[in-house]
Amino acid sequence: MRLPAELGAVYLKNNHCTFKVWAPNAKQVEVLLLTPGERLLPLQMEGDYFCGQGGDIPPGSLYFYRLNGEVDRPDPASRSQPQGVHGPSEVVTLEFPWNDHAWVGPPLTDYVIYELHVGTFTPEGSFDAVIPRLECLQELGVTAVELMPVAQFPGSRNWGYDGVFPFAVQYSYGGPEALRRLVNACHQRGLAVILDVVYNHLGPEGNYLRDFGPYFTQRYQTPWGEAINFDGPGGDEVRRYFISNALYWITDFHIDALRLDALHAVIDQSAQPFLAELAEAVHLQAARLGRRVYLIAESDLNDVRHLQASEIGGYGLDSHWLDDFHHALHTLLTRETGGYYQDFGGWEHLAASYRQGFVYAGQYSTFRRRRHGSSSQVIPPYRFIAFAQNHDQIGNRLNGERLSQLVSFEALKLAAAAVILSPFTPLLFMGEEYGEKAPFLYFISHTNPDLIEAVRRGRAQEFAHFDWESPPPDPQASETFERSRLEIGLLKQPEGRYLWQYYQKLLEIRREMIATVDLGSYYPEVQMLQPAAVLSLKYSRNN
Amino acid sequence: MRLPAELGAVYLKNNHCTFKVWAPNAKQVEVLLLTPGERLLPLQMEGDYFCGQGGDIPPGSLYFYRLNGEVDRPDPASRSQPQGVHGPSEVVTLEFPWNDHAWVGPPLTDYVIYELHVGTFTPEGSFDAVIPRLECLQELGVTAVELMPVAQFPGSRNWGYDGVFPFAVQYSYGGPEALRRLVNACHQRGLAVILDVVYNHLGPEGNYLRDFGPYFTQRYQTPWGEAINFDGPGGDEVRRYFISNALYWITDFHIDALRLDALHAVIDQSAQPFLAELAEAVHLQAARLGRRVYLIAESDLNDVRHLQASEIGGYGLDSHWLDDFHHALHTLLTRETGGYYQDFGGWEHLAASYRQGFVYAGQYSTFRRRRHGSSSQVIPPYRFIAFAQNHDQIGNRLNGERLSQLVSFEALKLAAAAVILSPFTPLLFMGEEYGEKAPFLYFISHTNPDLIEAVRRGRAQEFAHFDWESPPPDPQASETFERSRLEIGLLKQPEGRYLWQYYQKLLEIRREMIATVDLGSYYPEVQMLQPAAVLSLKYSRNN
Repeated sequence: MRLPAELGAVYLKNNHCTFKVWAPNAKQVEVLLLTPGERLLPLQMEGDYFCGQGGDIPPGSLYFYRLNGEVDRPDPASRSQPQGVHGPSEVVTLEFPWNDHAWVGPPLTDYVIYELHVGTFTPEGSFDAVIPRLECLQELGVTAVELMPVAQFPGSRNWGYDGVFPFAVQYSYGGPEALRRLVNACHQRGLAVILDVVYNHLGPEGNYLRDFGPYFTQRYQTPWGEAINFDGPGGDEVRRYFISNALYWITDFHIDALRLDALHAVIDQSAQPFLAELAEAVHLQAARLGRRVYLIAESDLNDVRHLQASEIGGYGLDSHWLDDFHHALHTLLTRETGGYYQDFGGWEHLAASYRQGFVYAGQYSTFRRRRHGSSSQVIPPYRFIAFAQNHDQIGNRLNGERLSQLVSFEALKLAAAAVILSPFTPLLFMGEEYGEKAPFLYFISHTNPDLIEAVRRGRAQEFAHFDWESPPPDPQASETFERSRLEIGLLKQPEGRYLWQYYQKLLEIRREMIATVDLGSYYPEVQMLQPAAVLSLKYSRNN
Repeated sequence: MRLPAELGAVYLKNNHCTFKVWAPNAKQVEVLLLTPGERLLPLQMEGDYFCGQGGDIPPGSLYFYRLNGEVDRPDPASRSQPQGVHGPSEVVTLEFPWNDHAWVGPPLTDYVIYELHVGTFTPEGSFDAVIPRLECLQELGVTAVELMPVAQFPGSRNWGYDGVFPFAVQYSYGGPEALRRLVNACHQRGLAVILDVVYNHLGPEGNYLRDFGPYFTQRYQTPWGEAINFDGPGGDEVRRYFISNALYWITDFHIDALRLDALHAVIDQSAQPFLAELAEAVHLQAARLGRRVYLIAESDLNDVRHLQASEIGGYGLDSHWLDDFHHALHTLLTRETGGYYQDFGGWEHLAASYRQGFVYAGQYSTFRRRRHGSSSQVIPPYRFIAFAQNHDQIGNRLNGERLSQLVSFEALKLAAAAVILSPFTPLLFMGEEYGEKAPFLYFISHTNPDLIEAVRRGRAQEFAHFDWESPPPDPQASETFERSRLEIGLLKQPEGRYLWQYYQKLLEIRREMIATVDLGSYYPEVQMLQPAAVLSLKYSRNN
């Protein structure tokens, strides 16, 4: 596995640039350079790759690949799409005045994660606008900023899971250079940066990868259509593409951890699983770079294999989102019972999560109509990420209500403590620390009318499980996006300020507990005191 | 996991019978008894199962399930289909005058497998007709008879992989009682019986399981259509159905081993894999019965996890067909290079298989256009099954040629020695021991004209990879079936007799080598002496 920067347009220096693209579906590939003047640069076929280099290509040059002399397509490994997903790709330089040379990254045990959506975190919706807010996060006790996906998506309003250029940084957020500025600033403040990456599907608009090669397979279906081809003909090159992507963020953007979205939709029957290969490549690169780098699984499978070592049949990922904990806590606080919440709702569910991580470790799930999960008791709890809220759990509600809209102020405090004083690694969703009231809705800005209509319909269907009263807000409307922006003013009001300080104090206590009772390295003793509805957690080093 | 006989119609005694069927798609299920007189027996809903019992139901009674008072369907767990796949199911008794009470079954290390197709092995094409041939097999040195699938398929001519009633023994072969007679006779002669079972798909005609419940899933595609639903809603009950099936054969038919067909098409993302659950249930039942029972994987994945213990992420199956060995040997003998043979053809491929089992243990495969397999070096060689011929490798050729039609007589002897004196467990395909010349062609006897045409087309497509000269024989023609029947007369001619004795001698040597150098427990030292084209295997206990 070679270096991250090998695919796509790699700017060297003196306006020299190399190109490399995997295109087994093409007989001929040329680079159509659009700037400064239009010209064609032929590429040489090397196996299923096409490679070449040229001069007079300064950073900022725009180009397409011309396939078989016929169609012009943006680069699958485009690093920048200044004119959006349908436009030409841009040659960008890797040069950046980093000043985080001593940065190693915190150990996973010290992570306190703050998940944010760049587009709605600030009025500007840009990477640069995040920077002035970092001080406040640092004061709060956050140690890691998690960015929802930033791969180029259609339009300017999207959660990020419709990205179609995994290497291109969303241009409307500021593009690759601005992301580097943000990471650099985070590191200056001692904050790690986690990037959410989507290796299970590409978005429905602007996906031109099929014109190049078998990136997808019809053998498996995901909730978002054809699965990515990790185990069929050409699967090695597809793996290389995504592994290169992971290495690109780590190496060329100094990203500290990747959150791997929806791994249940990475379907792979091969004898040597993609995820194990990804983990090996990333950890090797981290060792080369002398930094701590982590891979965080999001998966609906409750499968301990994600976390186990490859020697015992696992994939060797470092950490795992713990949805079961969320559901157990959320149902106790809200008494909601719709959809997947029907599997939770008892004190014993929350107690089970504190005791062992996954609540569903092989039991029958009524919602899933099958047994679900495997035991995670062998995994130390700091390798699970727990939250009372996140983008999905808020945004996948019809009206995108945060917990602040659903439960009392006292219950918000309880939720904060339940997460932060848990043995798990805590994650906060932007704004929860001061009880933000703005919803976080599902929003898109596609251009294809049929697709827009399909998303609207799909969204409505998704809510069939729940007992909602009115149709969902229109995902395509810019108003839906604007309503989701943080109001932040609350932070200056007494209640918001109080809650913020409460979170700050909890995080301080958490740090003390890490120092004194090694919080996170073992599961606590849990007692349920009923009918008073008290759950007592006892941490002692001797567990 | 309850006992094998729980699903379907279980005959108790005194003409009393219980019924149990999983039918989540139905609101009401009745048993429509057709004999002695037509009457309806209502079943009670118990969760997603419907259960009940009745009297006056002697063995031989015919019945359908009536779903929602509307449609009549044969029993998914039917034990007998005397009128074929579309007809009623039959109540059968488990009573049988077994006289194999002391039978324990040979250890896997002693297996010498003889694969046969009941329909073409004898002129009669029945289980009973196999019995007089057992003596000759025993004399040859065979220790285990492997039956190609016997689950009820449409018509009377089929390899068996189009079965649609996994519990029903093909009626035209003699039905369940005749199978018991054959197993009993085998055990009398010290021969184990392996049954080929298909848990990856059902045949295209006579599959009524969809009317009962979600036995299939659209999330995965197999070469034979929708995959079986092992991990979606209802997947637990689907597993129970197939695990009950495995236990049925072992317990009620005294079967010694199951060959699990095409496990690459058992697609299962769950945290607790079906195959591991199957292995656990079968091994537990074997322990209860005090017998040796084995599960043999056939899989195109070259994935060592099939054989590894569940504690290290494996499925815990006992044995694995070693296609790589076949391909390495076949290409050396025939110099064929078409289709999947393009990945083989060198002495180093055969040497690699002798040294480590899987030849493709992670290397790039030109045919598959991706890296393939994992190392099996940790698995002792007796857990692999090696062959120079089998039903697939012969029958998946356009003209179904056996090796006897492709190579010289001397080369047949060489092939025999290469297999029998290998460290692997040897498998012979019926007739190869005397150089049978009749082809083994692909044949069916469907009734649906569209389906017949589709099979003809599919067959032709399958041969696109190879350079064949004429179109394939018509699979539907009874002539194609008749041509595939053993001629056996050859056995009485000098050349056939000679070869038979040669096999017999090799098997005698094999037994000696097991006794003297523990053949099968380790990989030999392999030397290639070129250009003389000699491969030397050195077995020594000290390896």
